[in-house]
Amino acid sequence: MEELVGLREGSSGKPVTLQELWGPCPRLRRGIRRALEWLKERLFRVGEDWYFLMALGVLMALISYAMNFAIGRVVRAHKWLYREVGDGHLLRYLSWTVYPVALLSFSSGFSQSITPFSGGSGLPELKTMLSGVVLEDYLDIKNFGAKVVGLSCTLATGSTIFLGKVGPFVHLSVMIATYLGRIRTKTIGESENKAKEVEMLAAAAAVGVATVFAAPFSGVLFSIEVMSSHFSVWNYWRGFFAATCGAFMFRLLGVFNSEQETITSIYKTSFRVDVPFDLPEIFFFVALGAICGVLSCAYLSCQRNFVRFVKTNRYTSKLLATSKPLYAALVALVLASVTYPPGVGRFMASRLSMAEHLHSLFDNNSWALMTRNSSPPWPAEPDPQNLWLEWYHPQFTIFGTLAFFLVMKFWMLILATTIPMPAGYFMPIFIIGAVIGRLLGEALAVAFPEGIVAGGEINPIMPGGYALAGAAAFSGAVTHSISTALLAFELTGQIVHALPVLMAVLAANAISQNCQPSFYDGTIMAKKLPYLPWIRGRKIGSYPVTVEHFMNCTLTTLAKDMPLEEVVKVVTSTDVAQYPLVETRESQTLVGTVERTHLVQALQTESASWAPGQQRFLQDILAGGCPTQPVTLQLSPETSLYQTHSLFELLTLQTLFVTSRGRAVGSVSWVEVLGSQGWPKQSWGRGTPTFSLSKTGRYTLIPGLEGSLSLGHQLPACHSLDLVSLMPWGRHQLQTHRLDHRGCCRCGS
Amino acid sequence: MEELVGLREGSSGKPVTLQELWGPCPRLRRGIRRALEWLKERLFRVGEDWYFLMALGVLMALISYAMNFAIGRVVRAHKWLYREVGDGHLLRYLSWTVYPVALLSFSSGFSQSITPFSGGSGLPELKTMLSGVVLEDYLDIKNFGAKVVGLSCTLATGSTIFLGKVGPFVHLSVMIATYLGRIRTKTIGESENKAKEVEMLAAAAAVGVATVFAAPFSGVLFSIEVMSSHFSVWNYWRGFFAATCGAFMFRLLGVFNSEQETITSIYKTSFRVDVPFDLPEIFFFVALGAICGVLSCAYLSCQRNFVRFVKTNRYTSKLLATSKPLYAALVALVLASVTYPPGVGRFMASRLSMAEHLHSLFDNNSWALMTRNSSPPWPAEPDPQNLWLEWYHPQFTIFGTLAFFLVMKFWMLILATTIPMPAGYFMPIFIIGAVIGRLLGEALAVAFPEGIVAGGEINPIMPGGYALAGAAAFSGAVTHSISTALLAFELTGQIVHALPVLMAVLAANAISQNCQPSFYDGTIMAKKLPYLPWIRGRKIGSYPVTVEHFMNCTLTTLAKDMPLEEVVKVVTSTDVAQYPLVETRESQTLVGTVERTHLVQALQTESASWAPGQQRFLQDILAGGCPTQPVTLQLSPETSLYQTHSLFELLTLQTLFVTSRGRAVGSVSWVEVLGSQGWPKQSWGRGTPTFSLSKTGRYTLIPGLEGSLSLGHQLPACHSLDLVSLMPWGRHQLQTHRLDHRGCCRCGS
Repeated sequence: MEELVGLREGSSGKPVTLQELWGPCPRLRRGIRRALEWLKERLFRVGEDWYFLMALGVLMALISYAMNFAIGRVVRAHKWLYREVGDGHLLRYLSWTVYPVALLSFSSGFSQSITPFSGGSGLPELKTMLSGVVLEDYLDIKNFGAKVVGLSCTLATGSTIFLGKVGPFVHLSVMIATYLGRIRTKTIGESENKAKEVEMLAAAAAVGVATVFAAPFSGVLFSIEVMSSHFSVWNYWRGFFAATCGAFMFRLLGVFNSEQETITSIYKTSFRVDVPFDLPEIFFFVALGAICGVLSCAYLSCQRNFVRFVKTNRYTSKLLATSKPLYAALVALVLASVTYPPGVGRFMASRLSMAEHLHSLFDNNSWALMTRNSSPPWPAEPDPQNLWLEWYHPQFTIFGTLAFFLVMKFWMLILATTIPMPAGYFMPIFIIGAVIGRLLGEALAVAFPEGIVAGGEINPIMPGGYALAGAAAFSGAVTHSISTALLAFELTGQIVHALPVLMAVLAANAISQNCQPSFYDGTIMAKKLPYLPWIRGRKIGSYPVTVEHFMNCTLTTLAKDMPLEEVVKVVTSTDVAQYPLVETRESQTLVGTVERTHLVQALQTESASWAPGQQRFLQDILAGGCPTQPVTLQLSPETSLYQTHSLFELLTLQTLFVTSRGRAVGSVSWVEVLGSQGWPKQSWGRGTPTFSLSKTGRYTLIPGLEGSLSLGHQLPACHSLDLVSLMPWGRHQLQTHRLDHRGCCRCGS
Repeated sequence: MEELVGLREGSSGKPVTLQELWGPCPRLRRGIRRALEWLKERLFRVGEDWYFLMALGVLMALISYAMNFAIGRVVRAHKWLYREVGDGHLLRYLSWTVYPVALLSFSSGFSQSITPFSGGSGLPELKTMLSGVVLEDYLDIKNFGAKVVGLSCTLATGSTIFLGKVGPFVHLSVMIATYLGRIRTKTIGESENKAKEVEMLAAAAAVGVATVFAAPFSGVLFSIEVMSSHFSVWNYWRGFFAATCGAFMFRLLGVFNSEQETITSIYKTSFRVDVPFDLPEIFFFVALGAICGVLSCAYLSCQRNFVRFVKTNRYTSKLLATSKPLYAALVALVLASVTYPPGVGRFMASRLSMAEHLHSLFDNNSWALMTRNSSPPWPAEPDPQNLWLEWYHPQFTIFGTLAFFLVMKFWMLILATTIPMPAGYFMPIFIIGAVIGRLLGEALAVAFPEGIVAGGEINPIMPGGYALAGAAAFSGAVTHSISTALLAFELTGQIVHALPVLMAVLAANAISQNCQPSFYDGTIMAKKLPYLPWIRGRKIGSYPVTVEHFMNCTLTTLAKDMPLEEVVKVVTSTDVAQYPLVETRESQTLVGTVERTHLVQALQTESASWAPGQQRFLQDILAGGCPTQPVTLQLSPETSLYQTHSLFELLTLQTLFVTSRGRAVGSVSWVEVLGSQGWPKQSWGRGTPTFSLSKTGRYTLIPGLEGSLSLGHQLPACHSLDLVSLMPWGRHQLQTHRLDHRGCCRCGS
């Protein structure tokens, strides 16, 4: 009886059933059941973030692995064909070139026919999206298909075309995340808020990198550095969790497929651990960083100018506009011909795949020293144990081939980036950097064959360490990121060169960040994407540009004492998503906003009961149940450009109203999400890749930047943004007197 | 002549002197001179950030190295004394215990006599500072001296007291940064803005970690994770640059002092590279993470409760209040007695220093397997080649000593944290974690002596890898950070365990973040520092708490049509730094703010020319030149708590005014910087460590949290903050109906 009372008073509060009482150990069983329920409640809530992140990581790993698998088969088939076709030079040449030409023209044609904006790496577009811009359709699942197929074809061309996988993979990952997010929203019937969505996209970007390189740390750092301008630490674990799931799954598949015995790094190295480098070598590492910085500036500048040339040149622009596959085929033919192994390709190790390039370049031993007294023959097939033999030519020597590779790949990569197809540009940059480093390393190894510090134990110089530093520094300089150093360690599984590599990367970044926009910023600039970049300069806080200089003054307000006829007139003549609501027409005191859809609905209901002759006002239908939203944050005309910029960036806002003494005097919008009307379709990729979003007008910008830009119909509000976006790139000094409405921009057709 | 014209038209625009013309190659020389001037201008601007950061890194490295050097000497002297004192147990015991007792009581007494808030690690205080709170004097150079001397004494006690260096070093680094910042401000005569200052402090935090562990990557990640809640990517390079300079200098000094041949990691390991672990071991790594997570929860909970006990217990609180050195000496006596090597210390490897602990724990080979058939003797001195012998006891076995170490150090560390002296708590946590991992690793090595995957090559289990994962997971769980994984790799110079360690850290964090506040948050809670924590929960955006529930409604406004007598009355009766300025007394339309100092000055000037009988108004002196500031950002009463929170946190704001239809209706402040009046002095460390900042009133909080908290005299504005700050820690459900002004807080003495 006492136990029964105890049971009744149990915390569950439920009446105890007889069956429960009759079983053995009722208390224990109930305890276990409760614990299980608690666990179930904590772990198995549908829509929990960690489910989502795990699914994302695993899915992306599967896709990445499947793609690698398929590509591997195609590449093997190509190799087989090339080997079996006999010794006739014509046949060999054809078998070498036809493959990439066919694949590339298919890749370009297929992806462009499905969605015109599936070309390129996608990172610049993602960067703008993460800063709050909504690019409709860009994360569509249709785009996904085009990108997967196109990328597979591009990568199947191997080292001939010399393009990578990272950028598109980040894009794919973000697309999957968006898709999963939509499914989740549908399942749990809860609408996500904007900030949350951006957080998930940042985590997805980390997954993209992690599933390509199996490098979770640098994936997260990459998503911090390259994708976002501001980073919430709250978001940190998401990136790590998803990236770890992705990287683990990716490597696990490799183990299951017997490619490796256990989970290890992709490009394992075996650098000496006890004395990886002599102390004075630090100087050469920093010098290597500086060299990489200067070369990256040259590369970025050439790349940008060549892309501009291709777009403005009469023949190429016409070719690109009308038949992209043909252009791709022509470029592929040029690239494949140059890399034909018995021809020029002999001097640039073109029989190696990109992974083999890296494997060989990270080799410990100095090739120059190894070939000083002997002259190994060129093997008929690349020897997996001695991949470096591909880099050796008796007359040319190691230095000749490395330098030749550098010079040739420099323009070949620039040429390849102009093809409109899905492709990543990080990996080629990384390899070119490794070659730069290797070149310096081999030179040092020859100069100091006994190591630099004389006496004691001899520690010969390891050119592989320089290759590692060069790869990290050059890729870091081109992308303006420091996490490439960490990526280099994660890829090789050794971190013995931590300090020298980091110093090289910092030196390279110091030069390139001061002289050139990064690869991604440059592309954003070339594509004229609406992106809010950093305001540079330390004293900008005291900058005299304020909101009143650039706000949109032509604000359509609805006053509470407006007759309904006038309201109808306003609603039918404009198409903004929400209207600012003011107290009276005279005072213009801002009291809130009203959404167009709600207003239209209320007007329709109202018109049914409209007694003719009776004057009715807006306040009547507002009192009748039309919902209004409060304005939670207001700017003043005196708010500085800098502060506004921070607000928009940090809170990823769309529109803010400007009030002066309570009066609504204007609005500042960055990019307005036009609600049900949707964002006007982009016209990317057709002819000049102008990012035209406008229905109404076009603006030609300050001289010095070709093309035209238009940003929706809230045009005056964008003045400031056009200017801001020119500041860091166009190197235009922002003149205050240019900031009034007519000074800077000329309205034109 | 033609050349002369060409010269005149040169871009310099200066007239060409005759001397220039007469020298050889005038054009070339001028070109070189111009290039040098350009370089000089770019590089040698006084006050450039990178100068500052380099100076900071180098200085901190010097301090860190000098401290290590001095500590090494003291420790060596102690060892010598212990060895030479003979075999008499009493003398040996005395020589073992007197040293730490004397050092610790000196450390505690010295540091506390100079500044009462130099105790502890300083990280919790820094965390609040980086979130925008101004703690006056906390970064004073006087505090610096106390901390350096006190920390050196603490560390010189070696592994007896078992405390670390990281936390105080981060504090020292931030102090140096502040000091350098002041010097810079004086030199270039330019006042820094707040945001910039916070950025520099974050970089300084990275330097602190980097100069202790020579680990720049994890230093930066640590400063991101632990110190800031929001992170600007713009700030990224600063941290890396400063941390690299610091780490490089620190290791360079080691090379110059012939401690090592070249720059390498601190705790170098030599794990097998080809197959570092069998695939199924991943499961054990994750299990290890979970174990570490659970143990960290136990540790955090015990630690918090014990600290509370010490502070509330009659005897200990009295002892702590009156004679801290005595308390320190007593605790030191207990700890030293327990670790006396011929006594209990025999079972817990107490002859090893903390660095040797780590070195031995990261050993590749399984000690259990090595001692299965042989029983090596206990050496008279720790053998540097076989440090692990210290862990072995014939009867106790390896498992016994490791488990005993764990149990003993658990409570010893908790006891040590109660001593009020400068000390870091990261390193002991890290070692305890390594022991947990080692224990599991040894158990697995015994269970699977041939490795887990049967057949093929035998890959015996490396318990060192588990020690690494355990260290990272346990320290990560206690500090709620993931960067400890990276730290483990940087410390050991190998990254072969990347994925398993990261997975262990994630598992540990998942458990501890869900169950306990982090070590730092717990301390912030215990010290009742004014800190704005995260709002947890996903649906908080729709939370119905808005500004009007918690804003300060008693706003003292100055109207433009106020007679001057009334203005004088208001100014003399209040002491806020700035007053909101409204249009008329009736309309209360907010038009700007006026600073108290300016107003007082203008009133004094005005009173000289005051014609009696003439009624004058505020607008007259405003028109007469008293400067006003515009209000750049306004809240509405409808703004949600969540949005306000984000704004304050992201923009590190001090006060925002709330307007409704243009009327100033209230203000929301977080912590007001009281301008010239300064922040009222803190009363830390005396008696109950209540953080009392108020002059006027005290508030007792929601039951469940002892003590009282008061936050300046803008008290009503803080209601929300008190509540917010209780939410994640006190586990109180925030009830909306409690949020009105009287419901939640009782005014009392």
